[in-house]
Amino acid sequence: MTEVNGYEQSDREQHIDVLNLESLEPEAEKIIPTGGFGYISGGSEDDWTLAANREAFTHKQIYPRVLSDMDNPDLSTTVFGVNVKTPIMMSPLAAQGLANSQGEKDTARAFAAEGAFMGQSTYSSTSIADTAAAGNGGPQFFQLYMSKDWDFNEALLDEAKKAGVKGIILTADATVDGYREDDIVNDFQFPIPMANLIQFSEASGQGKGIKEIYAAAAQRISPDDVKRIADYSGLPVIVKGIQDPNDADLAIGAGAAGIYVSNHGGRQLNGGPASFDVLPAIAEAVNGRVPVIFDSGVRRGSDVFKALASGADLVAMGRPFVYALALGGAMGVQDALQEINEEFKTVMQLAGTKTIEDVKHAQLADFRY
Amino acid sequence: MTEVNGYEQSDREQHIDVLNLESLEPEAEKIIPTGGFGYISGGSEDDWTLAANREAFTHKQIYPRVLSDMDNPDLSTTVFGVNVKTPIMMSPLAAQGLANSQGEKDTARAFAAEGAFMGQSTYSSTSIADTAAAGNGGPQFFQLYMSKDWDFNEALLDEAKKAGVKGIILTADATVDGYREDDIVNDFQFPIPMANLIQFSEASGQGKGIKEIYAAAAQRISPDDVKRIADYSGLPVIVKGIQDPNDADLAIGAGAAGIYVSNHGGRQLNGGPASFDVLPAIAEAVNGRVPVIFDSGVRRGSDVFKALASGADLVAMGRPFVYALALGGAMGVQDALQEINEEFKTVMQLAGTKTIEDVKHAQLADFRY
Amino acid sequence: MTEVNGYEQSDREQHIDVLNLESLEPEAEKIIPTGGFGYISGGSEDDWTLAANREAFTHKQIYPRVLSDMDNPDLSTTVFGVNVKTPIMMSPLAAQGLANSQGEKDTARAFAAEGAFMGQSTYSSTSIADTAAAGNGGPQFFQLYMSKDWDFNEALLDEAKKAGVKGIILTADATVDGYREDDIVNDFQFPIPMANLIQFSEASGQGKGIKEIYAAAAQRISPDDVKRIADYSGLPVIVKGIQDPNDADLAIGAGAAGIYVSNHGGRQLNGGPASFDVLPAIAEAVNGRVPVIFDSGVRRGSDVFKALASGADLVAMGRPFVYALALGGAMGVQDALQEINEEFKTVMQLAGTKTIEDVKHAQLADFRY
Amino acid sequence: MTEVNGYEQSDREQHIDVLNLESLEPEAEKIIPTGGFGYISGGSEDDWTLAANREAFTHKQIYPRVLSDMDNPDLSTTVFGVNVKTPIMMSPLAAQGLANSQGEKDTARAFAAEGAFMGQSTYSSTSIADTAAAGNGGPQFFQLYMSKDWDFNEALLDEAKKAGVKGIILTADATVDGYREDDIVNDFQFPIPMANLIQFSEASGQGKGIKEIYAAAAQRISPDDVKRIADYSGLPVIVKGIQDPNDADLAIGAGAAGIYVSNHGGRQLNGGPASFDVLPAIAEAVNGRVPVIFDSGVRRGSDVFKALASGADLVAMGRPFVYALALGGAMGVQDALQEINEEFKTVMQLAGTKTIEDVKHAQLADFRY
Repeated sequence: MTEVNGYEQSDREQHIDVLNLESLEPEAEKIIPTGGFGYISGGSEDDWTLAANREAFTHKQIYPRVLSDMDNPDLSTTVFGVNVKTPIMMSPLAAQGLANSQGEKDTARAFAAEGAFMGQSTYSSTSIADTAAAGNGGPQFFQLYMSKDWDFNEALLDEAKKAGVKGIILTADATVDGYREDDIVNDFQFPIPMANLIQFSEASGQGKGIKEIYAAAAQRISPDDVKRIADYSGLPVIVKGIQDPNDADLAIGAGAAGIYVSNHGGRQLNGGPASFDVLPAIAEAVNGRVPVIFDSGVRRGSDVFKALASGADLVAMGRPFVYALALGGAMGVQDALQEINEEFKTVMQLAGTKTIEDVKHAQLADFRY
Repeated sequence: MTEVNGYEQSDREQHIDVLNLESLEPEAEKIIPTGGFGYISGGSEDDWTLAANREAFTHKQIYPRVLSDMDNPDLSTTVFGVNVKTPIMMSPLAAQGLANSQGEKDTARAFAAEGAFMGQSTYSSTSIADTAAAGNGGPQFFQLYMSKDWDFNEALLDEAKKAGVKGIILTADATVDGYREDDIVNDFQFPIPMANLIQFSEASGQGKGIKEIYAAAAQRISPDDVKRIADYSGLPVIVKGIQDPNDADLAIGAGAAGIYVSNHGGRQLNGGPASFDVLPAIAEAVNGRVPVIFDSGVRRGSDVFKALASGADLVAMGRPFVYALALGGAMGVQDALQEINEEFKTVMQLAGTKTIEDVKHAQLADFRY
Repeated sequence: MTEVNGYEQSDREQHIDVLNLESLEPEAEKIIPTGGFGYISGGSEDDWTLAANREAFTHKQIYPRVLSDMDNPDLSTTVFGVNVKTPIMMSPLAAQGLANSQGEKDTARAFAAEGAFMGQSTYSSTSIADTAAAGNGGPQFFQLYMSKDWDFNEALLDEAKKAGVKGIILTADATVDGYREDDIVNDFQFPIPMANLIQFSEASGQGKGIKEIYAAAAQRISPDDVKRIADYSGLPVIVKGIQDPNDADLAIGAGAAGIYVSNHGGRQLNGGPASFDVLPAIAEAVNGRVPVIFDSGVRRGSDVFKALASGADLVAMGRPFVYALALGGAMGVQDALQEINEEFKTVMQLAGTKTIEDVKHAQLADFRY
Repeated sequence: MTEVNGYEQSDREQHIDVLNLESLEPEAEKIIPTGGFGYISGGSEDDWTLAANREAFTHKQIYPRVLSDMDNPDLSTTVFGVNVKTPIMMSPLAAQGLANSQGEKDTARAFAAEGAFMGQSTYSSTSIADTAAAGNGGPQFFQLYMSKDWDFNEALLDEAKKAGVKGIILTADATVDGYREDDIVNDFQFPIPMANLIQFSEASGQGKGIKEIYAAAAQRISPDDVKRIADYSGLPVIVKGIQDPNDADLAIGAGAAGIYVSNHGGRQLNGGPASFDVLPAIAEAVNGRVPVIFDSGVRRGSDVFKALASGADLVAMGRPFVYALALGGAMGVQDALQEINEEFKTVMQLAGTKTIEDVKHAQLADFRY
């Protein structure tokens, strides 16, 4: 443990037992300080959407398929022109220094080692350059919380471009922060500064709550912003937080190169539907024009399968990998990613799907439980 | 605490912590005497409809909307010719002296301070004039439990008119009292007199149960009564307790100037549907002819949004504000109203709705959880 | 308490507190010996259908109605040519001596005093004549468990006719006993003889389990039996245990004068649907040709309303009245019947229904909870 | 108890109390060592499909039927040209030596004594010949986990044919093992060798986990394999693990003589639908071309009825009989089989079905609970 501004920060670097990704949460809760754990694990209001995100995966089921004359499923896929070894990706979760002193660098190391996409957050504990360097050439996205200050935005985009990211994820569902009761109960302020804020703005984020951090972000985002970011950066822009087919159309019309279906892990608009439930209609609206990334509630190999079969091209997870980060650093994250890859591979085999393309064409059942 | 006829009545006047409106109930239970708390919190029979009222809000979900190019949502709206700062209103809950020695006066102060509608009950602990005076010009309705004694009715209407109320809410769903088991278990009689009964009838309500109080009320209400009250008072009459589209038609046909969709917070007909579930069909029947007020089960900013998007023009709550009244008097009620306004404002922003009119046109999802 | 063959039999005769009918079960469990209580309260197998019988009432809801210009609802109705003061009836539950030393005589007293139908069981603890005499002219039915021995059947029918019963309820859903695990766990045998068996057969039932008792009953019942019983007795025959519209047609075709929709309170075929769920389709098939009696799962005034609005003409209950019988004898049963009548009357008023005919024409909601 | 390689193996041979089949699990858990119990009882991942298998039986309900003029239902049926006394069959569950030192021999004895089909597993603790001999002429199937090594497959088929089995059950849903967390948590390896592996291969299975065992099995199965096995053995081949109508067509097209609808008791693809829910569509696709065997989740006589009424010709169970085997050896298994036969017979009578053919034509209700 390292104490930073009174916060007991894990500095573990070790292999961990990963029975499954859900089993990591109670273990991580033991070593991440209450405020940090509440920030990572909590949703907004009474966590109804957070819970619905998990429940929704039971609304569809995977048909076991036999006599399919295949073995050794291939998890690799090409998205945004990048060939990755798995469709599983790291969500651009903020402030990973809350979990480990190596922060996003360790997450980047693990995802790069497994040939998987990694998303960096604007509010990362480590800088764009450092995280990219740790990723050692692995494919990364940079997630932008658009600031009111365009100089800041441009500085971040410049830096991200310099770091070689494959695209910009523009988070559009957080023009204000969701009502996060855990943070209120815990009176949580970030004990650890945010590297990009230190470097490119006058603030550091430290000692502030997420509400104050977001207050500096743009509270009004329009299609023009998508275009402006794409034009400035020359990079593909992926709009994150889409939950409505109309918004997918709006984003693509504004030049979005990708649609990121997410409800921010149940942390923003509580009372919204489960992210998995809205995915099919959005995928239908997108209709292959651009790739679709999905997150919110994914924990199992079967969830990954269901999301891909419902229209996703990449399936992201955040919290479980941050728990693994706390428990074991880069080694822990890699262990967790291997485990979920293995679960997913088993599901692929038992569903008779040899390739990711096969998974995308699998028909799901929709019995009601 | 003030002891009144053996009842320990709160006299708190202080700011309170309002994590959310639901969190107030267990706190209030600690300081409101058992009988009073049972009367306020309880429903009828086994509380099935009371619970359904809450559950029903999960039957619809709010689509998060992005790229909506808006910020700083505006909660103000004009209903019944009155511009209010929020569509959230105080239900005409009876006998608020059970919660605080200032009774309805404090509630009126808080709602007036926030520019919101307040409903006074016939069975208020404070008089029409006193409550109106405390409200200091804030918009109020007077709720009428129609008596068998028309002299009494007319006296109340005269007084309400004199007090400048914006309309008369005629409660039509309580021709007998629901079967309220909490009151039976607690053998509850009102320890505190009802000001309007003292002033205008021979009784005071004190020492009686709700069953006896209602026995003096009209046990038969017809469309003619709506017309009679409207004619006598010259005020808009809003019929409260509508749960069936046919009754909305009946009321409007009889001259009602507003429809109040409510099942009395689950206190009258247990075994009826959730109030939120019947709202859309009633709003469709009303079809904009008169404004619609909605209550029963509302606790969250997202509930307010869902009710407005389902056809309500005003959204009322009762119990949570009475709990706040017990915990902090007028300051507590104002704190609670500010908190729910804030929750609602957050939802408006995240749903991409700038105005109440936008909220009314938002389309809800209806996934099944 | 009276000890009979080692069984502690209640002999209470007193008024009881009846908060509601469901509240009687835990009270009765304290004074009815385990074996007897298990026999009365239990269903078959794992009690799934028993529980579904209760849950099903939440599948439909009652619309509160206002401005209905009525008061003082009238519970009286005429069924099978008999005017009764309430549509609530006593199910022909067996062996009521398990609950009280006065057995069916006390139940008959209570129902007669309230002007309500009473069903006597073949397996009553008191004789047809004694129960009829206690009923003092109140309307009764005699329920027949058809024996393999036609002399026995004819003796019972003669006796029932002599006693002036209004009809014969032929139980057709018990050609074998359901698999009642409570009786197996408790190794339950009837400690108290069955009066009709003593009087008209060579057995008494005492010291036997329900499985052995049923073994003497006919294990094969055909439409011809309906006709034979009707012809012999000259009384209306009501076929009990109907759960399928086809069987209603079959029974009426065979001369049945009434259809008794019941799944034996969840005691026979576990894994069958809830009795309330099948009622509408059966009532539609019957289409007014003969009256419909309904039981299985009814506990609340709102349940009575829902059953009538779904096609029933009489609504029967068994267990709750037997619990009241244990707790207070005839006075207890009468208290319980008054309470449920009162609950039902409240529901009638709040639903805007002045007469039983109005209830039958009320439209139910079918929101899903 | 017998200690085998440190594993406390039951050697009970005694009659047992069988309240119902579900009641056997907690009793068996007391005497089967943790690792063995986890292997037998567990499903894959978080056991969602395992639980859904049970829940699904509540999705359909059995109509009680009356006046059906029948008694003494006849459970006998002819399937695959064999007349059996009951449609209930033993699933080919592996490694029954975990439950009893007599292993599959005792199970075979019990099923033969009751005139019922028995399935032998490739991974049996006792050899094909020994199990067949113990079965003493009773009808058996041999279940094949197809090996990569065709010499091994042929040796097994030769032996099975010599033993007189009625058909070969080719398990096609286990080309890799499901992710069985119980085995991981318990670090379970088979303590007891598998007789067929000892006899016909270089391995014994002992000291290995199911993952390693399956690794020797074919991880790729095609329709050609069905044909090859049928051609080689000259026996009917039944493809096990079908959950999709398309696979039923594929199997029949490849020469399958039977379709075995199963999800391996929830042990393979977690996140798949309940086996009972997919049965009707598969039966419709099969359309009587070949017999249908069903398992996964069956525990009650009513479940057996529902499966037959949904298209099954035989209904298999595994775990409950293995628990009975642990508790009482062959006598225990026979007690359990008699009990479930008796439950099923009761249901047949109460549903008015005289024969298995009648059951197959019974119409189920599908109310939603």
